Amino acid sequence: MRLEDLPIRDDLRGMSPYGAPQIDVPVRLNTNENPYGPSEALVADLAEAVRRGAGELNRYPDRDATALRADLAAYLGHGLTGERVWAANGSNEVIQQILLAFGGPGRTAMGFEPSYSMHRLLSLGASTEWVPAAREDDFGIDPDKAVAAIEEHRPAIVFLTSPNNPTGTALDPEVVARIVRAAPGMVVVDEAYFEFARTGTPSALTLLPDHPRLIVTRTMSKAFAMAGTRLGYLAADPAVIEALLLVRLPYHLSTLTQTAARVALSHGRELLGTVDALRAERDATVTWLRGRGLAVADSDANFVLFGGFDDRHAVWQALLDRGVLIREVGPPGWLRVSIGTSEEMAAFRAALEEIL
Amino acid sequence: MRLEDLPIRDDLRGMSPYGAPQIDVPVRLNTNENPYGPSEALVADLAEAVRRGAGELNRYPDRDATALRADLAAYLGHGLTGERVWAANGSNEVIQQILLAFGGPGRTAMGFEPSYSMHRLLSLGASTEWVPAAREDDFGIDPDKAVAAIEEHRPAIVFLTSPNNPTGTALDPEVVARIVRAAPGMVVVDEAYFEFARTGTPSALTLLPDHPRLIVTRTMSKAFAMAGTRLGYLAADPAVIEALLLVRLPYHLSTLTQTAARVALSHGRELLGTVDALRAERDATVTWLRGRGLAVADSDANFVLFGGFDDRHAVWQALLDRGVLIREVGPPGWLRVSIGTSEEMAAFRAALEEIL
Repeated sequence: MRLEDLPIRDDLRGMSPYGAPQIDVPVRLNTNENPYGPSEALVADLAEAVRRGAGELNRYPDRDATALRADLAAYLGHGLTGERVWAANGSNEVIQQILLAFGGPGRTAMGFEPSYSMHRLLSLGASTEWVPAAREDDFGIDPDKAVAAIEEHRPAIVFLTSPNNPTGTALDPEVVARIVRAAPGMVVVDEAYFEFARTGTPSALTLLPDHPRLIVTRTMSKAFAMAGTRLGYLAADPAVIEALLLVRLPYHLSTLTQTAARVALSHGRELLGTVDALRAERDATVTWLRGRGLAVADSDANFVLFGGFDDRHAVWQALLDRGVLIREVGPPGWLRVSIGTSEEMAAFRAALEEIL
Repeated sequence: MRLEDLPIRDDLRGMSPYGAPQIDVPVRLNTNENPYGPSEALVADLAEAVRRGAGELNRYPDRDATALRADLAAYLGHGLTGERVWAANGSNEVIQQILLAFGGPGRTAMGFEPSYSMHRLLSLGASTEWVPAAREDDFGIDPDKAVAAIEEHRPAIVFLTSPNNPTGTALDPEVVARIVRAAPGMVVVDEAYFEFARTGTPSALTLLPDHPRLIVTRTMSKAFAMAGTRLGYLAADPAVIEALLLVRLPYHLSTLTQTAARVALSHGRELLGTVDALRAERDATVTWLRGRGLAVADSDANFVLFGGFDDRHAVWQALLDRGVLIREVGPPGWLRVSIGTSEEMAAFRAALEEIL
């Protein structure tokens, strides 16, 4: 039996599975992971929490993850409480739930490309038509053009990303506010990389009190260095969370996930302590790449988009041949490098220097 | 903001979230959990595995859960390998992925009711029209009528359950084989409770080699006593798994979940050792309930459907008032009790005796 002989959905035919290649190389700078693993103290606390709780693993988890949501709200601040926070297995599941509740057949979702391609893929998966709108040459969003696109297409859901992946571009909350006012449906601001933004960059969380159709998503995969735990979350009006309860899978968040996320949050200061080092390394990477004469997008994230290559695949492959795995993503001619440790970035620079 | 003021999908309006009430009572016999928690040895192994692996939690999990799938295949037997097994966060996510790959707008899914209501709810969530077909008075499926219903409605997906929830009814593989031959699309046999079936009951896994459109789903929540871990899985043709890769969320299965499931499988003999005790307790419960003059469905699962009540809610409430939580589910007049420990079942019998 071949895939094409199976009665899959017509709109999935010919598609390939999403995902960066998982290749075992010395320097992995391709999926925007945080290079700093959890401390021994965190690992010990997590093992102990699992040991204490595992005797109850025959029971279903707390379906509403009440304690975890309260902890996440406390971390976010802005006067949020657990009733205004929702969590799932990674931002991807959070976004899927939003699409299943507010999108669906006959509805459209809009995003400003280049951006996180899962917004488009998850929309397609949820049978929601995808309407791409364009970013400017500096990868920012022009609010007048955005409002015009929204008025033309009347999307059920608008996806914004700040900082944007793969470009690193943060959005001015004034732009977000104008888009929220213009949008007829829900507006999602994906802030997966927010903690890496330059000092003073405001979060869209500041807009929540005035905009009940706004949803701000976050993740513990990046700044919190917990990609293996798969914990995404959002803040929104309590009514939005009521809507998500209609489509979430019952008991979607395991006891272990809830436990691990709470332990990580209790070590938040330590985990977020890596953010400053990564921001400094990012800014140094931007400066170095520009010094090599390359085009580099301003970045508020833990990665940098750089380019101007006639054959980006050749550059990607040449780096891989030197043990450095980055990501072939973004507009033609550009490549994305995640920010690793100083040693990893030195290896990246040395390899790229050779190639250039 | 109220839920009804939000632009949710029209077909979700007026719905309530799925889920048994999570009430803290002495005797919980409402969600078909296994009452036996993991042993101290398993808990210690799990804590140690987490301690060893947690230092890498800053990295994404193995996206394809290769090692876990091989372990699950080895457990299932029937000559299966990891390429023919797929895993997700509970059977619910497995079924959702099947619906997103093979269902969707303009397609229908069929089930034989009363049955596991999530099949219907997940179909609706995936914008797949639900076509209910009826079971016989003994909760079995008449193959002639089933084939006629399939020929009439041409469903993209047929859901079978064996043993069925909430009735406990196992299906004859001959019935499954006839339905698979008649079905134009995929056939899913949900065997969440298979390990509790009476000795000699064959699994639909025996039919897989001849039927590439057949999918058999299982879970570690019940016999393996790992409801808190959320691990559902399936066996199918490798092409079916290729199809699921098109709709799965990337990195859907956390490192912790993969680790915990593998540790539990390595303790399989111990965990499955509780199954015999639960089967004996179930058979005794059936006998006792029949002795009280109640209608009782034959059960191959870890629960029993019993009834003949004019006001089942009053019986459910009276049991709850006595500290025993069961489930108000199934056809009118019936109630479902999960099989607990001997002590829990004694408490259930004593409470019901008082009420009758």
